[in-house]
Amino acid sequence: MHEINETHDPNLKSWVESANDPNTDFPIQNLPFCVIGNSKAVAIESIGVAIGDRVLDLAALEAEWLDGTKLSFLKDVRSEVYPSFADDPGLDWSVMHGDLASGIRRRVSDLLRHDNPSLRDHPGVERAFRPLTEAYFRLPVDQIGDYTDFYSSIYHATNVGSMFRPDNPLLPNYKYVPIGYHGRASSIVISGTDIKRPKGQNRSDAEKPPVFIPAKNLDYEMELGFFVGRGNELGSSIAIGEAEEHIFGVCLVNDWSARDIQAWEYQPLGPFLAKNFATTISPYVVTMEALAPFRTKAFERDADDPQPLDYLNGEQNQKLGGLDINLEVYIQTEKMRAESIEPHMLSRSNTKDLYWTIGQMLTHHASNGCNLQTGDLMATGTVSGKEKSERGCMLELTWRGTEPIELPSGEQRRFLEDGDEIIMRGYCEREGFRRIGLGECRGRILPAD
Amino acid sequence: MHEINETHDPNLKSWVESANDPNTDFPIQNLPFCVIGNSKAVAIESIGVAIGDRVLDLAALEAEWLDGTKLSFLKDVRSEVYPSFADDPGLDWSVMHGDLASGIRRRVSDLLRHDNPSLRDHPGVERAFRPLTEAYFRLPVDQIGDYTDFYSSIYHATNVGSMFRPDNPLLPNYKYVPIGYHGRASSIVISGTDIKRPKGQNRSDAEKPPVFIPAKNLDYEMELGFFVGRGNELGSSIAIGEAEEHIFGVCLVNDWSARDIQAWEYQPLGPFLAKNFATTISPYVVTMEALAPFRTKAFERDADDPQPLDYLNGEQNQKLGGLDINLEVYIQTEKMRAESIEPHMLSRSNTKDLYWTIGQMLTHHASNGCNLQTGDLMATGTVSGKEKSERGCMLELTWRGTEPIELPSGEQRRFLEDGDEIIMRGYCEREGFRRIGLGECRGRILPAD
Repeated sequence: MHEINETHDPNLKSWVESANDPNTDFPIQNLPFCVIGNSKAVAIESIGVAIGDRVLDLAALEAEWLDGTKLSFLKDVRSEVYPSFADDPGLDWSVMHGDLASGIRRRVSDLLRHDNPSLRDHPGVERAFRPLTEAYFRLPVDQIGDYTDFYSSIYHATNVGSMFRPDNPLLPNYKYVPIGYHGRASSIVISGTDIKRPKGQNRSDAEKPPVFIPAKNLDYEMELGFFVGRGNELGSSIAIGEAEEHIFGVCLVNDWSARDIQAWEYQPLGPFLAKNFATTISPYVVTMEALAPFRTKAFERDADDPQPLDYLNGEQNQKLGGLDINLEVYIQTEKMRAESIEPHMLSRSNTKDLYWTIGQMLTHHASNGCNLQTGDLMATGTVSGKEKSERGCMLELTWRGTEPIELPSGEQRRFLEDGDEIIMRGYCEREGFRRIGLGECRGRILPAD
Repeated sequence: MHEINETHDPNLKSWVESANDPNTDFPIQNLPFCVIGNSKAVAIESIGVAIGDRVLDLAALEAEWLDGTKLSFLKDVRSEVYPSFADDPGLDWSVMHGDLASGIRRRVSDLLRHDNPSLRDHPGVERAFRPLTEAYFRLPVDQIGDYTDFYSSIYHATNVGSMFRPDNPLLPNYKYVPIGYHGRASSIVISGTDIKRPKGQNRSDAEKPPVFIPAKNLDYEMELGFFVGRGNELGSSIAIGEAEEHIFGVCLVNDWSARDIQAWEYQPLGPFLAKNFATTISPYVVTMEALAPFRTKAFERDADDPQPLDYLNGEQNQKLGGLDINLEVYIQTEKMRAESIEPHMLSRSNTKDLYWTIGQMLTHHASNGCNLQTGDLMATGTVSGKEKSERGCMLELTWRGTEPIELPSGEQRRFLEDGDEIIMRGYCEREGFRRIGLGECRGRILPAD
């Protein structure tokens, strides 16, 4: 687990002025990685680091600095941290984890700090930056090999369970097994991608055969995602004490869900077409190192709850395996946009309320010898808290559509309508530290064909 | 759907003598594709075509023929079929489907036929062949993007359902929805790879907490796999009448399953660690074109069964969407090997008994706009028939361990023991056509750590 170090110093300022705004998601204490393209269509990509309202293009930086200067920024980092990569001219995302990512983050922190003139005063420094609003973000991992979604909020599991199984809301395995399932990797899209309403089988009238129609009960799910950094070999496992070394960083995830399709298809093998039409993620990977000040204890179980089995029970995990990340969901309908009404907050929840830590999820995943690979994405499942205002999906908020949400436009919502945009945000705050954010995860619903 | 053409002519013979053996899986009428490496460790790969007891190395062939001869075999094929690939020096598996695969198959058929001397009499022709027994097979698709497993045998679903839900064996969605779930792509391994017994949570004693131990009820599942050739864009779907154009070919799949882990973990989101520790596939992709003579009608539903919904109901699909492929499972225990006892047949089933066609599975998968990609693997789920001898997994054969299998070595099996090897075979036979086979899919159980 990463220690708090000088890169987290709350007094550290950057010569990039916007990074010193107390409300920015991206102060010098954060420095999340992202992948940016040169245009919407062209696929030339490089790795960037968000700072204030700009993104620092590491490839451009490297090109600038390699050309006629003695400072070979990335080469230096690589030869320091990973000698075998010193001769590799390109940035290889597949090794951007662990020590290497940490090394790059430190160097970027050093280069951007207010009292370091070396990059700031370098001619052509502007060419290494782009405004965030003009960056063409790609998925932060080019090829997500496998995507796994967990179900680790006990509040979400209990709420959903009590709708579908009133007498038996929480299944007996829940407190022993970090329940998860495989999702679809190909349909993971970057924030800002429009989402077409899926069609599917609907059997809301149990007296009649199902009909194949556009989904009626379209929903979002507010989740935290995390990327595997270092993987493990098939047949080997990952001890709970080492789990964090295999996690590169986190992002926001919207696990779009068609509840009518789900209710009809999910037995006995779990959700399939109800979820695999699209999953949206935010562009920034906030590293585990940046999150070091916001670690917290694992979920405090009730006295009569079982303790995690040994393979999921580690001292560090219990003490600091939790994450204190606030997650907010907003909606803006077509009418709200037309009337310039700001997005309306639907919920605010926190990952510290998850029953399982991300380390436990990862260790469980590999406990049978399943090989995890660099760039795999895992997600927590809907992050809901105890309170009604902390419910991370519409299914819970409207209690399966029975308690519609009133919007400031005078509209009501049971589920998502065409034209609705869902905006997710995440941030960490702690006394004595700079606030850092996860950016945004947006998606707007287009009508079905 | 592919027509029967001159490549299926049963009288066609090859100058590769072993291809004319009536029992070979790989007569000149088959010509399945595979990927071979230069050695077990080195990753230099090329695409091969199995013929008799040998594999024709297309890359070697290309190299031989490009060097000083005017016959540029693959370039010719490519420029004929896919002009834009004429200048591409390497074989690109991602375009090895549809017309291109068909074109290559025809050219290979032409080159290997008994009355064509052009390759046969070419100096150095031996260098283009390797004995099958000395080939180092790789996965036939380098990177399987997503792997989806269906549940399309109604006999399997009914058997398994009646063990777990005696009063309600077949769920109400079964006859409407081709039930499927996402599997793990990273742990798909090639035939011959040893399988380590997974550990996991076992709660066979409901009075006590679960324990984390090596799986006790380890099982195989005999399935047919099929590879996506051409994909579809996110948000678009695939009409049932066009489904077959998106399927490249088939292979054998062993969906290893730990039943004790599965029983405890699978609710409510489906199988996860019970299956993702390993899935074994055979090395050969038998193309849909080679299978043309073995197409059959879709499953004949009972008079009181619902017809498939419109999006799953196509004239061609009903008439020829089925596949007449025999699937056999054999076991050889350590004791049997020591005593030179031949592998013992556990079951023989046939894909024509599947309730859903592979075209329906694919169309259903994309019906919500989910994007399928070249190289994705789908599998049918356990292929079981009506009879006891047609049950495609041990769970069914031993009725959850209550009716052990007697082996010729005097041993009994409820589930798999360490050292057991499972061998799967598949083949097609039809009056008036040459028998073709799918090769073998093997895996041996190693003890847990």
